[in-house]
Amino acid sequence: MLIRKNCTSQPQNENCTQMIHVPLIEYQTLSVDTKNLRLFSRLEATIVWRDPELRWDTSVYKYHEVVLPVDKVWTPEIHVTNGILTTMKHSSHDLLVYSNGTLRHTVTINAEVNCEVNLFNYPFAADDCPVAIQTWSTDGCGTALVLGELRMVDSTHGDWKTDGVALQKKRDDRNYIMVSLSIKYVNPLITLLLPSILIILADVTSFALPLGGGERNSFKVTLVLSFTMFLIILNDKLPGDSQCSPIIRTHFCVCLVLLVLSMLVSLVLTRLAKDGSFIFCCWSKGPVAKSTGNEEEKENEEAKADISVIQLNGSEEDKRMLRKVVNFLEAFDAKELERERYQRFANTVDTIFFWSYFFFGTVYFCAMTYVMVRHTCTVNHFDFWY
Amino acid sequence: MLIRKNCTSQPQNENCTQMIHVPLIEYQTLSVDTKNLRLFSRLEATIVWRDPELRWDTSVYKYHEVVLPVDKVWTPEIHVTNGILTTMKHSSHDLLVYSNGTLRHTVTINAEVNCEVNLFNYPFAADDCPVAIQTWSTDGCGTALVLGELRMVDSTHGDWKTDGVALQKKRDDRNYIMVSLSIKYVNPLITLLLPSILIILADVTSFALPLGGGERNSFKVTLVLSFTMFLIILNDKLPGDSQCSPIIRTHFCVCLVLLVLSMLVSLVLTRLAKDGSFIFCCWSKGPVAKSTGNEEEKENEEAKADISVIQLNGSEEDKRMLRKVVNFLEAFDAKELERERYQRFANTVDTIFFWSYFFFGTVYFCAMTYVMVRHTCTVNHFDFWY
Amino acid sequence: MLIRKNCTSQPQNENCTQMIHVPLIEYQTLSVDTKNLRLFSRLEATIVWRDPELRWDTSVYKYHEVVLPVDKVWTPEIHVTNGILTTMKHSSHDLLVYSNGTLRHTVTINAEVNCEVNLFNYPFAADDCPVAIQTWSTDGCGTALVLGELRMVDSTHGDWKTDGVALQKKRDDRNYIMVSLSIKYVNPLITLLLPSILIILADVTSFALPLGGGERNSFKVTLVLSFTMFLIILNDKLPGDSQCSPIIRTHFCVCLVLLVLSMLVSLVLTRLAKDGSFIFCCWSKGPVAKSTGNEEEKENEEAKADISVIQLNGSEEDKRMLRKVVNFLEAFDAKELERERYQRFANTVDTIFFWSYFFFGTVYFCAMTYVMVRHTCTVNHFDFWY
Amino acid sequence: MLIRKNCTSQPQNENCTQMIHVPLIEYQTLSVDTKNLRLFSRLEATIVWRDPELRWDTSVYKYHEVVLPVDKVWTPEIHVTNGILTTMKHSSHDLLVYSNGTLRHTVTINAEVNCEVNLFNYPFAADDCPVAIQTWSTDGCGTALVLGELRMVDSTHGDWKTDGVALQKKRDDRNYIMVSLSIKYVNPLITLLLPSILIILADVTSFALPLGGGERNSFKVTLVLSFTMFLIILNDKLPGDSQCSPIIRTHFCVCLVLLVLSMLVSLVLTRLAKDGSFIFCCWSKGPVAKSTGNEEEKENEEAKADISVIQLNGSEEDKRMLRKVVNFLEAFDAKELERERYQRFANTVDTIFFWSYFFFGTVYFCAMTYVMVRHTCTVNHFDFWY
Amino acid sequence: MLIRKNCTSQPQNENCTQMIHVPLIEYQTLSVDTKNLRLFSRLEATIVWRDPELRWDTSVYKYHEVVLPVDKVWTPEIHVTNGILTTMKHSSHDLLVYSNGTLRHTVTINAEVNCEVNLFNYPFAADDCPVAIQTWSTDGCGTALVLGELRMVDSTHGDWKTDGVALQKKRDDRNYIMVSLSIKYVNPLITLLLPSILIILADVTSFALPLGGGERNSFKVTLVLSFTMFLIILNDKLPGDSQCSPIIRTHFCVCLVLLVLSMLVSLVLTRLAKDGSFIFCCWSKGPVAKSTGNEEEKENEEAKADISVIQLNGSEEDKRMLRKVVNFLEAFDAKELERERYQRFANTVDTIFFWSYFFFGTVYFCAMTYVMVRHTCTVNHFDFWY
Repeated sequence: MLIRKNCTSQPQNENCTQMIHVPLIEYQTLSVDTKNLRLFSRLEATIVWRDPELRWDTSVYKYHEVVLPVDKVWTPEIHVTNGILTTMKHSSHDLLVYSNGTLRHTVTINAEVNCEVNLFNYPFAADDCPVAIQTWSTDGCGTALVLGELRMVDSTHGDWKTDGVALQKKRDDRNYIMVSLSIKYVNPLITLLLPSILIILADVTSFALPLGGGERNSFKVTLVLSFTMFLIILNDKLPGDSQCSPIIRTHFCVCLVLLVLSMLVSLVLTRLAKDGSFIFCCWSKGPVAKSTGNEEEKENEEAKADISVIQLNGSEEDKRMLRKVVNFLEAFDAKELERERYQRFANTVDTIFFWSYFFFGTVYFCAMTYVMVRHTCTVNHFDFWY
Repeated sequence: MLIRKNCTSQPQNENCTQMIHVPLIEYQTLSVDTKNLRLFSRLEATIVWRDPELRWDTSVYKYHEVVLPVDKVWTPEIHVTNGILTTMKHSSHDLLVYSNGTLRHTVTINAEVNCEVNLFNYPFAADDCPVAIQTWSTDGCGTALVLGELRMVDSTHGDWKTDGVALQKKRDDRNYIMVSLSIKYVNPLITLLLPSILIILADVTSFALPLGGGERNSFKVTLVLSFTMFLIILNDKLPGDSQCSPIIRTHFCVCLVLLVLSMLVSLVLTRLAKDGSFIFCCWSKGPVAKSTGNEEEKENEEAKADISVIQLNGSEEDKRMLRKVVNFLEAFDAKELERERYQRFANTVDTIFFWSYFFFGTVYFCAMTYVMVRHTCTVNHFDFWY
Repeated sequence: MLIRKNCTSQPQNENCTQMIHVPLIEYQTLSVDTKNLRLFSRLEATIVWRDPELRWDTSVYKYHEVVLPVDKVWTPEIHVTNGILTTMKHSSHDLLVYSNGTLRHTVTINAEVNCEVNLFNYPFAADDCPVAIQTWSTDGCGTALVLGELRMVDSTHGDWKTDGVALQKKRDDRNYIMVSLSIKYVNPLITLLLPSILIILADVTSFALPLGGGERNSFKVTLVLSFTMFLIILNDKLPGDSQCSPIIRTHFCVCLVLLVLSMLVSLVLTRLAKDGSFIFCCWSKGPVAKSTGNEEEKENEEAKADISVIQLNGSEEDKRMLRKVVNFLEAFDAKELERERYQRFANTVDTIFFWSYFFFGTVYFCAMTYVMVRHTCTVNHFDFWY
Repeated sequence: MLIRKNCTSQPQNENCTQMIHVPLIEYQTLSVDTKNLRLFSRLEATIVWRDPELRWDTSVYKYHEVVLPVDKVWTPEIHVTNGILTTMKHSSHDLLVYSNGTLRHTVTINAEVNCEVNLFNYPFAADDCPVAIQTWSTDGCGTALVLGELRMVDSTHGDWKTDGVALQKKRDDRNYIMVSLSIKYVNPLITLLLPSILIILADVTSFALPLGGGERNSFKVTLVLSFTMFLIILNDKLPGDSQCSPIIRTHFCVCLVLLVLSMLVSLVLTRLAKDGSFIFCCWSKGPVAKSTGNEEEKENEEAKADISVIQLNGSEEDKRMLRKVVNFLEAFDAKELERERYQRFANTVDTIFFWSYFFFGTVYFCAMTYVMVRHTCTVNHFDFWY
Repeated sequence: MLIRKNCTSQPQNENCTQMIHVPLIEYQTLSVDTKNLRLFSRLEATIVWRDPELRWDTSVYKYHEVVLPVDKVWTPEIHVTNGILTTMKHSSHDLLVYSNGTLRHTVTINAEVNCEVNLFNYPFAADDCPVAIQTWSTDGCGTALVLGELRMVDSTHGDWKTDGVALQKKRDDRNYIMVSLSIKYVNPLITLLLPSILIILADVTSFALPLGGGERNSFKVTLVLSFTMFLIILNDKLPGDSQCSPIIRTHFCVCLVLLVLSMLVSLVLTRLAKDGSFIFCCWSKGPVAKSTGNEEEKENEEAKADISVIQLNGSEEDKRMLRKVVNFLEAFDAKELERERYQRFANTVDTIFFWSYFFFGTVYFCAMTYVMVRHTCTVNHFDFWY
């Protein structure tokens, strides 16, 4: 028997194509790399094949089954066609040979598969990925697969959940496992969507802050920078541009631009509320005019004062002084009034902007939600078979 | 003897199942990946088995024990059934053969096991993980394990502590090591819980800040953004959504929403304290009305002034001027009063909100603590055996 | 036949150079490391060669094709000349031998190639990278390649897109695959360019904030620090200094310096608007002078008061008191006026600076855009062949 | 000679235990993983042993020394007992055999050792780690080590410095290298301790900021958040909870709590300085009371006014008006006075708190420094030998 | 010929030392790890040696050159003595044998070398690293190297640039490649130096901000925290403390301390400008004294009021009332004056501090620049050869 084992260290394919039976495949998704769109999976396949030279006569050699070391016999190979890195390992160092030449073995395949998952509706993305299974075969020579049962081992670890697996066929020699994946949406929802919605809500509410108080702008710039941070985090998690790239990225960009726009308007309105003009078109016209007016008034006042010195009347001086007080208060009041007028104007503009911003934002949000929920984007996963 | 060694390079299983004795297993937890819920462990097993062909007659060959290189004899394999990556290495290149055909060897197994640890009570999580140990066996042929002692090597390194290990059996051929793990809660407690509690405390106390001072809102937005940061850190450490997902994530989300709510209320109340109205329902009604009132009053005043010019009485003018001063002061006082009224109203609303916020927060906190301490969530760890 | 296979485990090169036919190469870009400028690619080549010793007479041995294990025959090697890490693996353990001695095999080559991609126009960078393919050949002995078809497998994963591949030749024995790569510009555009443009926009608009309000400086310092953060992110993504280093880095530096300059000017103008002088040249001259003036006035006042005590006239005292009131108001008015004058002056300087800043910025921006769009920088990719 | 070499491919242990001489070990610390408390070290050992079957007669074969390929002879193994990952590689493919059967070889061992370094005085931590060296030996059969010289190769790379190494013995067959490690304290000192001390210093000094200015609270919250960041950085660098866990973590927690406490007190005092009461115990009592007083006063005023309308006396009206002015000013003054009283009270409380805070902080700091310098914590490093 | 090849699978060293000719070495720096001070390099060496047993008579066997598989003949090894991880791989599976017994082969060596680069002048660091090349040789037996040409392959990738390589000799058997490395200074310059200089500039300019405005302190604390961030980034990039540790770390520490000092002074001066005293030495003395004065005055006032009620003189009451107004205004003026005096004093102290800070800073900066440019620090790179 020892001699017999030693001479069987080569494959035996008589009619150049040998059938390999795979009664059971256990599929397990190890992890999914969302950034690079790669699927790491592990297959444990039981393979059964027949090697005529390993037959023996049970009358001569009494045992019905014999255990042989795996490196002394030929074993078939299973390939993952669309895997960019596939390693097939023997699950054990020994295999079982029956007296009729049938061999039974178990192999473990770790495959890294490129799978362009459709991430269009990102935090709720779900797609199917094919894991193509083939054996070696060239020019009609080689091996052919006969697949049996497929079982999914619990694989809810990591960021993706495997919803189901199914054996399917494209052509007679093109078997593949269709893996249904869906993202676990809780984490991105909490980390990305919730804070960003809260930021936008805070930005809308920040219009309640008074314009001139000096708080609104710093509040808004804080929000903008935080939102930028979330945009960066989002981009770190998502893959680069591709067919069916996630719509949430576009959504975040639009939101960022809206936030910045609202901040810029707030900046300009702050100026408007204070000076009644923008720095851009006409600079410091208002104050200059006012002060020259003041200047004139002053001169008038002094002219009057000169006159009153001549009159030198007691009650007149009283009156003059009182008038000065009144003038001062009136000037103060006028300035106050002017400022109030500016502020009122700025407030009106602010309110108008707020309502249009609010309206546009709501419309945009509804449209985006509609697109996100309704639109489906399909990716051809079988471009590795031409 | 040399010849004998050379011919023994194959397994010898007469009745197709061979007993493998494992008198001692040393178990060591290398690390636990909390994010992916994986357990890396290291087993060092002493295995003893009998190979009848390696027997010799001590009368012919005088030695009782002989050292053989490990790659010249057949050695049994030990598998970790639920390991997604298992490597078995020989601890040494040589093994010991006794004259009665008994072989003694030591192997080292590094196993990466998927173990869905129950993280419900996250910073205080503790759970048991099975590490299933089997040998190769197909169709009644193969090897069977007879396990002996199990010893735990000190393994308190990393984020998890191994509390204990125990050999248990599910079925006759289903041995497993039950590893009791508990998280070291000091690190997440300090890094996550302590700062988040302090932030919420600071948020509650920030109601002490005056509404109009312009400090409260920036204070609160800083707290909100920091809390978001902690939420992100938490999510980076915890695995995705799963059965028995940690309750602390939900807790953090609720806290974030509460913080944002308190910030939004504070924003709106700031406006209320200033204008006496919200921007949303009725815009700038207050100031407009007031100023038109002012306008009218002004006109009245000017009408009076016109009259007084006609009267041209000295003491009348004095009086008129004084009245102007008094009017100014009264207007100022009235405005002040109105602002105070607004502020008082806003303060009252603020206080009411604070107390309800405080009450609701306390109730919520107690409920959450109760759930966290009392509720236990159980995970079936044996789903790899169907 | 078994014996024949065993003796063929060596190469057979009669005239010392053997032709290796490669009818099909499938090229796939696995990833591109932008930071280290490395290209990871995967080649799957079908190779056909002729081994005269493996010929057999089909009359003696009836089969036309035979499958042999790959480690029993000699197989040619394919090298990637400019690869710093190349691994060639057999795609399968078996290969096909025809009765005329022709062998057909498939190999998979993973190569890590140093390719100094031209990143001058960074977010829109595109360049060609050669992947040189050679076989072993020394002193006229060895193997020579005859390349056939080249096919690109879909490889749009990661940050770079492979636009196309082409087989080209430098010399007779210097074949290379020219890989056209272009960066996916959406991600850096959103993460880097969009926020930085918005920051600069916000900085320009922040001139609308009033000088003295105490908001502008904190606003600007926030922008500067955020911009610094983006500069750091940019540098983390881009490789170190090199020939054709990206112009965007210089651009970001200039922008940062401009932002800081505008912040510093804003700081100094805040002082100017308050005191009418810089702290640097003449310290607290203004206020001191004013207060000494006040002091004098005060003394005068008191002198007058002394005199008035002597006069002790009722209406005189009234007048004196009124005058005091008027004096107070006038002093207040004068101070106000002076402050206003300072502020007006500062505002004017601010406006001038703004317009020059705006003008210079626009000119700079246009020039930079022109350089970025027009200038092309070429890198010699073939310096590994001397 | 060729034949002789071929037959020597097995170990030769006559009395079942063979002496292995190790005249020289070169020890090098590659790196120390502070987070996981692992020591990566590299040993280069020269080993000399005797294989009687490799002896030859120099008269027959003239050479005294022969170079043999290492895979044709048996070589002893050296294990690192407490290594969780040990790889022994031959330094060269050849070894030297002397005519008397002595073999001389060099091996390189890379070992990853679990070593629970005592980090109690963290930035100044120093401890000894044993690297246990053994050979394979079971049941009295195997090999025994005879160690010679130990030399340390310069290994000051990384975060830890190797101060010295020494060969020591626990039992006759338990040799170990005692490696004295000390942390390079400059980096954590600069990155962690210096900023945290400066933050606490800034917090103490921030009491100099006026209470009502609105600056102190935002200043303090910034400090608190930065300190939290340093706490997170510290926890990222340090291992989880363990025996002799670093005291600096407790210290940082206490500091954080102190910072937050000082912030909360500052928040409450801000309210106190403004309203003279806390929001918690009695809400808006002050302002309500005051305003109702105002209200009454107002009514009084109006009642008086009604009367004065009846009197309708000129100088009386003057007086009335003047009284109004005076009333206004007095009310203003009273409010000012009240506010000042509140502020004075708040300031006093603030000062008292500051001094107690300062006192307690200093005492705590001294105690902590004392504990850190004096207390030593010892770890049993030999728990792998039971 | 087949037989001959089979028997040559052993080394042949007649006089126990064999010359190995290395006509060409291609050196390439793969990367330099600045943090751990390690140099990853790749050597591609052509080696030529002579194996007398592989000679053949060209009359018997007609070919002059024969290609042999590399695992059938003995090949010499090349070691990198100071490499902590060296892997030598055959560039091809075949090698060339000439009829006179000369063999020609190419090997690729990947070496990880510990090289304590002198980083004293960090962003402009440049140093030489030796890569020692040896072959195996023990006790006079072994191989000896004869090195030929050395060529540098373009290696400007990564953070370091290889300026040149040169073959040098320490002793007859101690050959090494001297690799001249210089850091690419653009990245650290932009990421670290530029922002830190801008921060210090901003800090110096921030003295222009008015003391009491409440802006300066928050501005300065922002700068301090950003600088701390840069310090952390710097420490992440640089290795731990060592001989010739980079001076820039000390420089950053000094700058941080200066920044904090300037912040603390600013904090204290803010208090000084408001109250005219520090909280530390004499608490709230100023306001208390003032208010008690006010209190007295008040009583006086009221006493007078009591008297005036008795007098009940019309013009007297007028006067009394007017005096009240005047008193109020005078108190206001006095308070204003006092505040101004405090502020003036604080401003003067501020200016003095600014100039001394500016002066000291400039002197320090010049000294530091001088040390950085002039001082050179030398490291002995040959401590691995004792």
